[in-house]
Amino acid sequence: MTCLPQRVSITEVGLRDGLQIEPRILSTEEKLALACALIDAGHTSLEVTSFVSPTRVPQLADAAELLAALRRVRKAELKALVPNRRGAERAIAAEVDTVVLVLSATDTHGMRNLNRTTRDSLAGLGEIAAMTPAGTRIDVSLSVAFGCPFEGDVPVGAVIDLADRFQQLGIGRVSFCDTTGMATPRQVQGLAHTLRDNLPELDAAFHFHNTRGLGLVCVMTALQEGIERFESSVGGLGGCPFAPNAAGNVCTEDMVHMLHEMGIETGLDLPRLLDAARLAEQLVGHPLDGQVLKAGPRLRSHADQG
Amino acid sequence: MTCLPQRVSITEVGLRDGLQIEPRILSTEEKLALACALIDAGHTSLEVTSFVSPTRVPQLADAAELLAALRRVRKAELKALVPNRRGAERAIAAEVDTVVLVLSATDTHGMRNLNRTTRDSLAGLGEIAAMTPAGTRIDVSLSVAFGCPFEGDVPVGAVIDLADRFQQLGIGRVSFCDTTGMATPRQVQGLAHTLRDNLPELDAAFHFHNTRGLGLVCVMTALQEGIERFESSVGGLGGCPFAPNAAGNVCTEDMVHMLHEMGIETGLDLPRLLDAARLAEQLVGHPLDGQVLKAGPRLRSHADQG
Repeated sequence: MTCLPQRVSITEVGLRDGLQIEPRILSTEEKLALACALIDAGHTSLEVTSFVSPTRVPQLADAAELLAALRRVRKAELKALVPNRRGAERAIAAEVDTVVLVLSATDTHGMRNLNRTTRDSLAGLGEIAAMTPAGTRIDVSLSVAFGCPFEGDVPVGAVIDLADRFQQLGIGRVSFCDTTGMATPRQVQGLAHTLRDNLPELDAAFHFHNTRGLGLVCVMTALQEGIERFESSVGGLGGCPFAPNAAGNVCTEDMVHMLHEMGIETGLDLPRLLDAARLAEQLVGHPLDGQVLKAGPRLRSHADQG
Repeated sequence: MTCLPQRVSITEVGLRDGLQIEPRILSTEEKLALACALIDAGHTSLEVTSFVSPTRVPQLADAAELLAALRRVRKAELKALVPNRRGAERAIAAEVDTVVLVLSATDTHGMRNLNRTTRDSLAGLGEIAAMTPAGTRIDVSLSVAFGCPFEGDVPVGAVIDLADRFQQLGIGRVSFCDTTGMATPRQVQGLAHTLRDNLPELDAAFHFHNTRGLGLVCVMTALQEGIERFESSVGGLGGCPFAPNAAGNVCTEDMVHMLHEMGIETGLDLPRLLDAARLAEQLVGHPLDGQVLKAGPRLRSHADQG
């Protein structure tokens, strides 16, 4: 393929965006085993947990313990999502590498998910930026950037304005998240194009869900528009509370299989990623959505099978 | 999106490529109900059955009865797959609109699936073309055109040579089938490009499986290369015998959802397609892979939900 990046970076988000909705709560040891398998497969950037209310998300109540345990055994950029200043304080105290502040691109989703408007979240971001020590990085994760389940289409202009504000606050890395799988190729093209024209310095990651089967199509479109950073989830862990049986996040190993077949480097080892996905499947106790997990890589020969 | 077709044609293959591997054998009345639902959703071209050995594929043993019953109640191009001259004779006797002769792009797959080499299948195609009455159309469906589970990669040159032979035999429409989900964007681009350069008169349809999660990515790539005809299956019915739990054919309604969101016309009604997919799910008795079936179209609002 012409005009595609030669290499992309992937942040693995399964331990956070995936496990947060799993009915079975994994022990810290189990999460640690999965994180190690992912790092051993080549991951250098992982969003491993979230500093949210343990009552609201008991699945991630061990955030500080997991970070401490993981830090002792492996080296990688460890990120944690935080919804507010209190979460950021806890994350900084736990010596996370990167605090990822989550904001919603729409007020309705922001009020439902974070109990605050986008404007209030932005004010909070300023405070958090001011209190964060020099050694800790702040990223932003922008929810419903490709569509809101309450407000519908989200104008690209509104998303760009927010990204511009982040940049003014010194935030260089922003994840544009398709929280409920509403992104379409047209939108992805529109946002990537507008970002390039208006905020060429911004280091953007695109984060898709496969809720309506378009996850990898959106990755492909983003690649064609020069996006080089993606977030995805081992085995496709994750989901959308509005579509209980639908697919979750874009599956890391399916995306890596696609990228490698397109000649794009990821630094990841596909067979080891598949091992990690099998472990994830065992730990959550049900089949995951990953397709390469079920079918194997495309050139696996069936000549000797029955 | 620039440079994409304004409209695409879709042949629905669920009744053939889907039902042939379902453990539950549907009655002719059930198939008729599903076919009517699909035609009522706007389908004008359907591969509804296959004239193969009823012992080998009991699911499609009622081929002639289904065609006769469907002809009485609805109007659409009705296609039937045939593996050989005997099948073609039965299909012609059943007054099918279009005989679709299946050939394999590789000898190993051809011997396993059809008990004949590609060369022998080609000779058979010549005989069938000679005996077919003027009112019956002959198409070709080329299996493993994007990769063979036994031989691995299939060179584009070999596929083009075969397509050239078809054209010399007077066959104008050819379906290039990704029988076991091995197609990648690079290959799709390569084949589409080479077809355009070498056989610009050929009316090519691309037929993908989602076995490794790349079905819609391949459709997207094909669209960008000017392919305007696709085959797909209601609900994603179908599968691959080598990957029992993997996804099946590209799901018609997921593809239509994507196309409509890209501003590409299909002549199909998405809500009615979803009704047909729900019916298919009931009839086969297990959940299907279609994602829009589970999550709803992207702009379905959740504002009023609990």
